[in-house]
Amino acid sequence: MIDQSTICAISTSPGTGAIAVIRLSGIAAIDIADRIFKSPTGRKKLADQNANTLHYGELVYNKEIIDEVVVGVFKAPHSYTGEDLIEISCHGSIYVQQRILEILVENGARLARPGEFTLRAFLNGKMDLSQAEAVADLIASSSAAAHRLALNQMRGGFSQEINELRDKLLHFTSLVELELDFPEEDVEFADRKELQVLAGKVEKLLRQLKNSFQLGNVIKNGIPVAIVGETNVGKSTLLNILLNEDKAIVSEIHGTTRDVIEDVVNIHGTAFRFFDTAGLRDTKDYIESLGIERAYNKLTGATIVLLVIDCQNPYPVVKGRIDKIRERVSSKQNLVIVVNKIDIGSEDTIHKLESLDLKKNEKRVFMVARDKKNLDELIDIMTHTVNTDTSGREDVIVTNVRHYEILKKAHEAILRVVEGLKKGITGDLLAQDIRECIHYMGEITGEITTHEVLGHIFRNFCIGK
Amino acid sequence: MIDQSTICAISTSPGTGAIAVIRLSGIAAIDIADRIFKSPTGRKKLADQNANTLHYGELVYNKEIIDEVVVGVFKAPHSYTGEDLIEISCHGSIYVQQRILEILVENGARLARPGEFTLRAFLNGKMDLSQAEAVADLIASSSAAAHRLALNQMRGGFSQEINELRDKLLHFTSLVELELDFPEEDVEFADRKELQVLAGKVEKLLRQLKNSFQLGNVIKNGIPVAIVGETNVGKSTLLNILLNEDKAIVSEIHGTTRDVIEDVVNIHGTAFRFFDTAGLRDTKDYIESLGIERAYNKLTGATIVLLVIDCQNPYPVVKGRIDKIRERVSSKQNLVIVVNKIDIGSEDTIHKLESLDLKKNEKRVFMVARDKKNLDELIDIMTHTVNTDTSGREDVIVTNVRHYEILKKAHEAILRVVEGLKKGITGDLLAQDIRECIHYMGEITGEITTHEVLGHIFRNFCIGK
Repeated sequence: MIDQSTICAISTSPGTGAIAVIRLSGIAAIDIADRIFKSPTGRKKLADQNANTLHYGELVYNKEIIDEVVVGVFKAPHSYTGEDLIEISCHGSIYVQQRILEILVENGARLARPGEFTLRAFLNGKMDLSQAEAVADLIASSSAAAHRLALNQMRGGFSQEINELRDKLLHFTSLVELELDFPEEDVEFADRKELQVLAGKVEKLLRQLKNSFQLGNVIKNGIPVAIVGETNVGKSTLLNILLNEDKAIVSEIHGTTRDVIEDVVNIHGTAFRFFDTAGLRDTKDYIESLGIERAYNKLTGATIVLLVIDCQNPYPVVKGRIDKIRERVSSKQNLVIVVNKIDIGSEDTIHKLESLDLKKNEKRVFMVARDKKNLDELIDIMTHTVNTDTSGREDVIVTNVRHYEILKKAHEAILRVVEGLKKGITGDLLAQDIRECIHYMGEITGEITTHEVLGHIFRNFCIGK
Repeated sequence: MIDQSTICAISTSPGTGAIAVIRLSGIAAIDIADRIFKSPTGRKKLADQNANTLHYGELVYNKEIIDEVVVGVFKAPHSYTGEDLIEISCHGSIYVQQRILEILVENGARLARPGEFTLRAFLNGKMDLSQAEAVADLIASSSAAAHRLALNQMRGGFSQEINELRDKLLHFTSLVELELDFPEEDVEFADRKELQVLAGKVEKLLRQLKNSFQLGNVIKNGIPVAIVGETNVGKSTLLNILLNEDKAIVSEIHGTTRDVIEDVVNIHGTAFRFFDTAGLRDTKDYIESLGIERAYNKLTGATIVLLVIDCQNPYPVVKGRIDKIRERVSSKQNLVIVVNKIDIGSEDTIHKLESLDLKKNEKRVFMVARDKKNLDELIDIMTHTVNTDTSGREDVIVTNVRHYEILKKAHEAILRVVEGLKKGITGDLLAQDIRECIHYMGEITGEITTHEVLGHIFRNFCIGK
């Protein structure tokens, strides 16, 4: 499945930078680099150099100096791809990046497809498929938690456990299948008791993994938060001060996170994804109320609902709003009543809100959003409301939709095995369910895969990785 | 002037990429990197490694694995900055880039200011000021010619020649000044004949350099091209097919050149900067004609004027347009008459345009812009109209406004020296002019510089270079 061509791509973020890195991987990588690399003495050949060394020199093509570069030499199998690999660190102009790519192509390399370096790493056995997939997640991760999960998965994560259990299942299934070769005799090569224990273990792991997806998904994509409330109660002010809490950015960055994932904010290492639910207000107009109904429906997807209230209003009015939202918020969601403008609010309203009975899934905070007063308290509530602390459990958290879909099927299959064992079903039916489970487990780690699956997975990678 | 702090920055283009490179430079660079670097065996210290080597490992901080990285080790003085320098190649998520920066700062580094790595290279004598300035030009260059000029300047360019002549002038001026110490005696330590020869050489070099700025500037910023003509003659079509000729881009790139320098197109290695001159048409409305007057005025700045004509119109009408534009185009500009729509045009008009007498600075091309018919011919005309071929002359071409401004002053000073020598003016006046010229020559290469000048120059760099 590995083609023998040497591939090249710009591996750093596209655009102008101080430096850029161009990668070249494949059997001819060092040879191609040597054709255009010229050391200061003019005598150094990259092919003669030790692995993992850096070399300053010029890229020269058709007698023209293209750039002054530093070239890193990696040798198979000790490289990212498992092949000979060259990293050219050049000046970061788009022109020079493109020119070097062109020259590499003219010298026999071809442009890499998205994720092709990682695909080769997979095909060369440097990592399994779920690890390879984690590379893309790692690059896309925008919060500490998502980053931690992706890194963990890339470093092995749950693949090892899945593979071990799968190997054991494989052993059993071959024994069960052996029985089928002796239909006349009443033999049991596969100890049903042991198999039951193993199937129990597999079922537990697959269930854990499957169930972890909800949390994993929230961590990866951000906790959905809806900010609701009438106009002028301070919703935008609140959103703005929350956006400013994005402490991750310590230096000036052009085109930062905000451009890409517009409404995801990283607060103290947790990503929150803010919903637009503008337009929640009372109306007697039928058509308008339909629109508002639609806005209310958006609440369903939120893990946290921030209900912003202007406490200048009389308590009964405020209470009315709260009740209306309470009707819409399920007990699995978290409602935070943000009592805003307490500096100019009605004392009676504030007092009564202080003694308002809260349900288990409700919290309240008194704020002056404009002055960031008690913002820390709100953030505290938000970050603690949803426990995304996965410390020590990262290896059993699934963030990948593909894995989740396969896990569901694998889990169904192993449940049938568990049930079948209880009922004492025949070996052929048993073997079929075990085989199915093994197949799905193999699809996660890439033991079993197809061109289509690989194509689909790596299509979503960036070029150069 | 060099502070002893260790600086760090993301050196690759900001944003998400497959990989990113973070640079760390200064006396504590290797030490800081060692605090967070963990090799697979856990025993490797970067401080013990050879210079110019690459090391795979993890970044670990407060027991948390931050990323799997490859670290490049460079040792003073053999690094870009001339200091100990570490390059951390990490996964290209914005989160991890920022996190690593934060951790480096927590371990004692500080965020680098724009261009601070290059500033240090200059202060550590790795390059002179004009070379340092060329680094920024190199990164910003978007055409082959601009790139070549910047690269040449970075590699020494005209600095060496300037410095040699400056040293000789310095020698002479000290002799002349020595004469001033013996005012009573009629001594001439400085041979006036030799000085005259030297001043002549200096004057020639400075004049060449000064005069090269126009070409240099055009190469650096693109040849200004105005596309003019009535509405519906095919101006936009022509612009679009020219934009598509941007052959530099060989792979898919998000946020390419077009986003940054919107109207500069790189055609066969030459950059063209297209002007918006919409609105050139006949009108009887006084107010509107004022606007059109303003549009005509834009033509003044164009090196090439593409006058697009729809040859479906009768010849007298077409001729009228041509004459109108001819009035506005000076003999130093190039007028290209683009006869468009020849597939459906009037035979009479086409025939008469074929025999229209052209001036020296005029060219004509018959096209069907929609079908790209004869586009190559137009491009040929455009690329040959302005000779930006600088092969072998790159060392005497100035692209930098700061250099140009200084060169003008230096040239004025040396002219006074040349004149003064002819007139036999007194040594004190002579010394003053030579000193002035020396001063300016030193400002170009950075022999003489101030905090303000450096601040101004490096402010325009990107962070991380």
